[in-house]
Amino acid sequence: MQSSVRVPARVVRGEGASESLEAVAAEEPLEIVLEFEHEGVPRRKTIALTMRTPGHDLELAAGFLYTEGVVSAPEHLVALHHFGATGGEGDYRNAVRAELAPGVRVDLGRLERHVYTASSCGVCGKTSIEALRATPRLGAPAGRARFAAALVHRLPAKMREAQALFEATGGLHAAALFDEVGELVALREDVGRHNAVDKVIGARLLAGALPAARCLLFLSGRAGFELVQKAYMAGVPAVAAVGAPTSLAVELAGEVDVTLLGFVREGRFTIYAGADRIEGAG
Amino acid sequence: MQSSVRVPARVVRGEGASESLEAVAAEEPLEIVLEFEHEGVPRRKTIALTMRTPGHDLELAAGFLYTEGVVSAPEHLVALHHFGATGGEGDYRNAVRAELAPGVRVDLGRLERHVYTASSCGVCGKTSIEALRATPRLGAPAGRARFAAALVHRLPAKMREAQALFEATGGLHAAALFDEVGELVALREDVGRHNAVDKVIGARLLAGALPAARCLLFLSGRAGFELVQKAYMAGVPAVAAVGAPTSLAVELAGEVDVTLLGFVREGRFTIYAGADRIEGAG
Repeated sequence: MQSSVRVPARVVRGEGASESLEAVAAEEPLEIVLEFEHEGVPRRKTIALTMRTPGHDLELAAGFLYTEGVVSAPEHLVALHHFGATGGEGDYRNAVRAELAPGVRVDLGRLERHVYTASSCGVCGKTSIEALRATPRLGAPAGRARFAAALVHRLPAKMREAQALFEATGGLHAAALFDEVGELVALREDVGRHNAVDKVIGARLLAGALPAARCLLFLSGRAGFELVQKAYMAGVPAVAAVGAPTSLAVELAGEVDVTLLGFVREGRFTIYAGADRIEGAG
Repeated sequence: MQSSVRVPARVVRGEGASESLEAVAAEEPLEIVLEFEHEGVPRRKTIALTMRTPGHDLELAAGFLYTEGVVSAPEHLVALHHFGATGGEGDYRNAVRAELAPGVRVDLGRLERHVYTASSCGVCGKTSIEALRATPRLGAPAGRARFAAALVHRLPAKMREAQALFEATGGLHAAALFDEVGELVALREDVGRHNAVDKVIGARLLAGALPAARCLLFLSGRAGFELVQKAYMAGVPAVAAVGAPTSLAVELAGEVDVTLLGFVREGRFTIYAGADRIEGAG
């Protein structure tokens, strides 16, 4: 799996131009197919189609299923693999099969209401937040994580350092988990910011390491409602973004007690919720 | 409708901190409800739930329905309004009702396959592109638009100038249509980049001005497959982005003859497809 491909292009600078091969972020659709029993009858249903950067597909599927509330523990997944993984044709790499354990109940109505937005399936933010609270998730252990302001200031440099290994396209979003002393726990990249977060959370789910209750989720872009929602589902107590948060992300973070930082760059950041988890910030 | 709200926050600079009110981009869910006849029976179905910035909701709904192939002409929509628009309660502003003209056929299977990703409902990029070609759209007039390289170089400044009227949050994506002499035709902003494009295209659909065959679509962020797809549906011959394109966006642009430019900033840009529409670029 390559996360970028080279394409022929013409680079124009002022009035001059030159032909070259340019790296662009790889983007292909991924279909997530759920197999489960419903009232004793085996069912198969495509529950998501997402445009993603190939690679870490099983983590993406696992993270998606967990953060959207379809499964609430790793043992709910008894099989997770690409279709045709044992020798099928090329394009099967763009479809993942997730088989649920017998007895895991699937809310078909919820799936049919478009699972990718199910947690925002109210018609106002309040409804969305209440629906999220009612979704089962792995319980967080006792204790409250703390992150030093000095550590937060260092996150952009740490992310760049880790990303240098991956990215040459300018077209990938990154999501990374750091622990309380600033060690990188996991980093994933994708053309879709939701996918990058699902991959990181899926990696921790499959490693049996959720909830990630001592970690901070760092995002290369902006922080919207759905990213804070995914952090909350994974038990992550703090989200920090290089870019801006949205109004509903701020509201959700306040309601579910997730620390939310924005504009983390160039020696500054803004705390929108949960300031008590940040030490040494005034 | 306000596109931003102020929230209390703590701004941390180095080791100092201060409390302030900070503007953040408004984000709320929008539900698009379709009413139509199916085999003579009236049906009502929620076909999309998207997290969007309130404002221009009817344009957003119209643009979504058109670029996703649910309607293929403005006259297919006989009613388009917020629920309770004539005096309902507050949250009805987050649901739009779209009523189709009698006789407009709806592909229910396609809707049930998650309309928001319907055009990428293959399991590989090729299938996605073929499905897109088969989707009806308003025909483009004869003639081939041309855009001067010097005009392209000026787009970032023109966009900033137009955006200055709107945006103070750092959290909104912008999409703008410019004509061949660089005049701004329409600009819309949203927390979601797809929504910003749907709003611009919906505005032109409702104005009876599609296909936008003499216009260039300028994007404040990156250019993925779905944004090029929407441009193609609207008959827009050129897409230019401040950020990077993805591999599938480049492939699609080449296949459906849309000019695609990336990294349009600081006196340079890169042409990934359709170079013949750009004049004075080497």
